[in-house]
Amino acid sequence: MALVVQKYGGTSVANCDRIRRVAERVCQRRRQGDDVVVVLSAMAGETNRLIALAKEIQSPPDPRELDVLLATGEQVTISLFAMAAKTLGFEARSFLGTQVPIETDRAHGKARIKNIPGERLKEALAQGIIPVVAGFQGVTDSGSITTLGRGGSDTTAVAVAVAIGADVCEIYTDVEGVFTTDPNICPQARKIDRISYEEMLEMASLGAKVLEIRSVEFAMRYGMPLHVRSSFTDAPGTLVVEEDASMENILVSGVTYSKNEARITLSKVPDRPGIAARIFDPISEANIVVDMIIQNTRAGELTDMTFTVPQGDYDQALAIVERVAKEIGAESVAGDTSIAKVSIVGVGMRNHAGVASTMFRILSEHGINILMISTSEIKVSCVIEEKYTELAVRALHEGFGLDKAE
Amino acid sequence: MALVVQKYGGTSVANCDRIRRVAERVCQRRRQGDDVVVVLSAMAGETNRLIALAKEIQSPPDPRELDVLLATGEQVTISLFAMAAKTLGFEARSFLGTQVPIETDRAHGKARIKNIPGERLKEALAQGIIPVVAGFQGVTDSGSITTLGRGGSDTTAVAVAVAIGADVCEIYTDVEGVFTTDPNICPQARKIDRISYEEMLEMASLGAKVLEIRSVEFAMRYGMPLHVRSSFTDAPGTLVVEEDASMENILVSGVTYSKNEARITLSKVPDRPGIAARIFDPISEANIVVDMIIQNTRAGELTDMTFTVPQGDYDQALAIVERVAKEIGAESVAGDTSIAKVSIVGVGMRNHAGVASTMFRILSEHGINILMISTSEIKVSCVIEEKYTELAVRALHEGFGLDKAE
Repeated sequence: MALVVQKYGGTSVANCDRIRRVAERVCQRRRQGDDVVVVLSAMAGETNRLIALAKEIQSPPDPRELDVLLATGEQVTISLFAMAAKTLGFEARSFLGTQVPIETDRAHGKARIKNIPGERLKEALAQGIIPVVAGFQGVTDSGSITTLGRGGSDTTAVAVAVAIGADVCEIYTDVEGVFTTDPNICPQARKIDRISYEEMLEMASLGAKVLEIRSVEFAMRYGMPLHVRSSFTDAPGTLVVEEDASMENILVSGVTYSKNEARITLSKVPDRPGIAARIFDPISEANIVVDMIIQNTRAGELTDMTFTVPQGDYDQALAIVERVAKEIGAESVAGDTSIAKVSIVGVGMRNHAGVASTMFRILSEHGINILMISTSEIKVSCVIEEKYTELAVRALHEGFGLDKAE
Repeated sequence: MALVVQKYGGTSVANCDRIRRVAERVCQRRRQGDDVVVVLSAMAGETNRLIALAKEIQSPPDPRELDVLLATGEQVTISLFAMAAKTLGFEARSFLGTQVPIETDRAHGKARIKNIPGERLKEALAQGIIPVVAGFQGVTDSGSITTLGRGGSDTTAVAVAVAIGADVCEIYTDVEGVFTTDPNICPQARKIDRISYEEMLEMASLGAKVLEIRSVEFAMRYGMPLHVRSSFTDAPGTLVVEEDASMENILVSGVTYSKNEARITLSKVPDRPGIAARIFDPISEANIVVDMIIQNTRAGELTDMTFTVPQGDYDQALAIVERVAKEIGAESVAGDTSIAKVSIVGVGMRNHAGVASTMFRILSEHGINILMISTSEIKVSCVIEEKYTELAVRALHEGFGLDKAE
């Protein structure tokens, strides 16, 4: 008999029929003898509908009041779900963020979970009740409602699993698990059976949208196994667990890409101490996140500086850089939004040399020019021209043998 | 400087435009120097939408979970309202039933308010904040969300007004106040400027749908003045206050009617002790509320028994009575759903004889047959054939001089 937290996303509870179907799945698990705590998102589209309402009144909406508004989304699904479970003969009880309670800091709209007392959920379980917890929402020490930001329900699920000492946290979604790459552009993509937390973090931050990053960090910190799986089938999905010896044999676990990139280059910057700060301080003050930075020192005292920013921040970043370029006496500023980043991820890289050069060779064999490179312990990223994105992903996927069964 | 509670109903906050308009009205009152606490209903239609969702899942819905679901309606309007007030330059803060808190018993769906600690609202007021309270909802001693039943927001408003010692509780609605009768069937109906709690109670229970009965009882118990007025104009509405000497001069304050009545007659019932209980016990066990009861003793040991029930309960009540009739040996059972009740209400009746007979005379002058009569200290009700309802209301309205200015 296991203790399981099951989290269902917005598409899995998008209407009454689907809520009923999910309830049947949960009750089936109970019949098999496992204890289940359910964590739910709002119905798909509901959070956006509420944000639109708020913006009709105030733009940007007051953060505290927006949280009060958005928290209604999960309140609707958990109450409907509890009713559905009752029609199937099980006792169920909805738990709001204020009722668990999910204790957070006061950062409305992006609150962080500080603590979850597990007692009330455990009491309910002991009475044979299925606790149905509202994802995404929490409560401050002063009793105000907070929300955790987009994808926050995953984090709620993991934190609840940790709080009650669950055996596994199952994240149900509309895909079958984590794939070696995006099946939409590479039909050979395979579902990954097991992946380490660190690989999953790199996959998530690089654009695989299956799991929210914070939930993976949380699971890694507490060693809580995650099981990413489909709410439409019974097939096992992807287990996200601690790295083990078997994983090291796999050089590359996945190929990811992001088209949401833009590149800015300052040419012939006088190479003086502190020059990088002069460029990047005003960018970070504008809350723009710089990803890759490359500096090529030329002969003499001049240097070229290239970096990437999210495409949505490109115009603002370019304006800042053009102003700074004049102040520091750089010769010219150039920008490019038609670029993409492709990456390979794998814990096996730690112990195997030559993975990066294999990547460069595969790209070059397909005539793809590499514009920038960045590496970490378990990933290699290359910026390329955007038009080559799909080709590069397919070439890397095949080149590293990901299209063959493990 | 006054302390005012203002309650706005569902039609006044039916969409973002109207919420903004109501916020302007509240802020205008603040600019005039008054302190305001706002109590809001859900957007018009929202509660019905949520009930329909629940019934799609479970019918009847689980009472506890239905309350969790329905409470989202007011949560939406109070957060949007607080945003609207902020755009107008005022500080505002939403308060859920759990946050005030509005402490109730555990009767989900029809909870009664037990206590409201006014401290948090008073603290907010002292900081210059406009508290925006969710109507209709409360919280039990174990932290579960409750709702007060239909019209419960009026009760929330009065209870909050009492808790913070407000000078007046203003109930905003889509009509200009309480009228001498229904203007839809009697164009001469006039707005009443002042009315006593007791008269308002009779008006409310007899079918004038402006105020929820419990809110009037609450206001009467604590002597809280109510001001029923339109959210679309600035004109004063109707003040509901304690009876004073001037009110006694007015014989009849209003004429009300209800078409939601049905009549059941048992003929030739053997007149034995306990026979009434044999008839009415099973009806009350079926949760059917009997209104008027009339017993005509015939010569000898036989009696006729006639009573009225809500039309929606007629079929069920008739079936019960037909069963009982056989058991007790009554000769026959007859029913009639095409009846109506017209009533006159006025505290002046206490000190003036002949009001009832004037009513009977007016009805007879218009050829209207009286089927049943019931009287209380401040009202007289007659059951008539339904087709005469409008005629009777207009005749009584004119006959008691209600179409003339006070």
